[in-house]
Amino acid sequence: MKVKVLRLGHRYSRDRRISTHVGLVARAFGADELLMDVEDKQLGESITGIAQEWGGEFRVSFINNWKKFLREFDGEKIHLTMYGINVDDCIGKIKSSRKDKLIIIGGQKVPSDLYELVDHNIAIGSQPHSEVAALSIFLDRLFDGKELGRKFNGRKEIIPQERGKKVIEK
Amino acid sequence: MKVKVLRLGHRYSRDRRISTHVGLVARAFGADELLMDVEDKQLGESITGIAQEWGGEFRVSFINNWKKFLREFDGEKIHLTMYGINVDDCIGKIKSSRKDKLIIIGGQKVPSDLYELVDHNIAIGSQPHSEVAALSIFLDRLFDGKELGRKFNGRKEIIPQERGKKVIEK
Repeated sequence: MKVKVLRLGHRYSRDRRISTHVGLVARAFGADELLMDVEDKQLGESITGIAQEWGGEFRVSFINNWKKFLREFDGEKIHLTMYGINVDDCIGKIKSSRKDKLIIIGGQKVPSDLYELVDHNIAIGSQPHSEVAALSIFLDRLFDGKELGRKFNGRKEIIPQERGKKVIEK
Repeated sequence: MKVKVLRLGHRYSRDRRISTHVGLVARAFGADELLMDVEDKQLGESITGIAQEWGGEFRVSFINNWKKFLREFDGEKIHLTMYGINVDDCIGKIKSSRKDKLIIIGGQKVPSDLYELVDHNIAIGSQPHSEVAALSIFLDRLFDGKELGRKFNGRKEIIPQERGKKVIEK
């Protein structure tokens, strides 16, 4: 099962840090690719630079026509939104399918037809918080928390410590 | 058990959105208060404004001397850092204690003595990602995922929908 994350409506200076966090969370929590409908090369290089140091096969891609991409995606399309069905009421069904997943994370203004174009509108709780948190919790539920123990075999690796920092570089 | 989140090293324009997400995640995932060592009234008002609309008793406070605050805090002090012990190797022990919790979230430069001043240095995986994601996963583990079903009894409330948005305002 491949998992991709589509970030819609990125605004260059205003959203760069949040979108960077979205990309890093996607990678660290087991997704394979970040797709964006707005091309931001600086952001792409920042995330792929981290992926090169820390390992794994994570990619960042830019797409021109997200609606066409969504229509043609062969798998389950999951929109994370505070207005949707609570994740714990539907994650069992989603996990039982081995289809590829496309997780869609909107910016502040989400096109209203998005709700109709996806298979699931899912809320990580129905309170306002953060698309970064929503993505992390969704992936954590999808992978049963096992993503946190995944090995990335990167050039850099952290050896967990009770105090201080230990990083090995190969 | 009270849970507070201490955000260290906030920088006004650069960190405002990330720190806002930290505050909103703290509230939505069941913490009682956000503390900051840098006073940012605009940020405080933004978070408390959302709390007033959406319910609950969440507070934002600013402190002058975070080391003194840490020393005097009567409870468990938990620093979230990618260099620490993986959360799933220590959350059982932390959950078994009913002591109040102070969760510390650093900015990009964390004072090195912080590692010595806390009871636990905990990693949400040992990969670079996001303090927003780290906080959400830690609180989700601490509260067994039950925080997502919590009622806030706010003026505004979302009724979960398969398609579209439904918000009631009282």
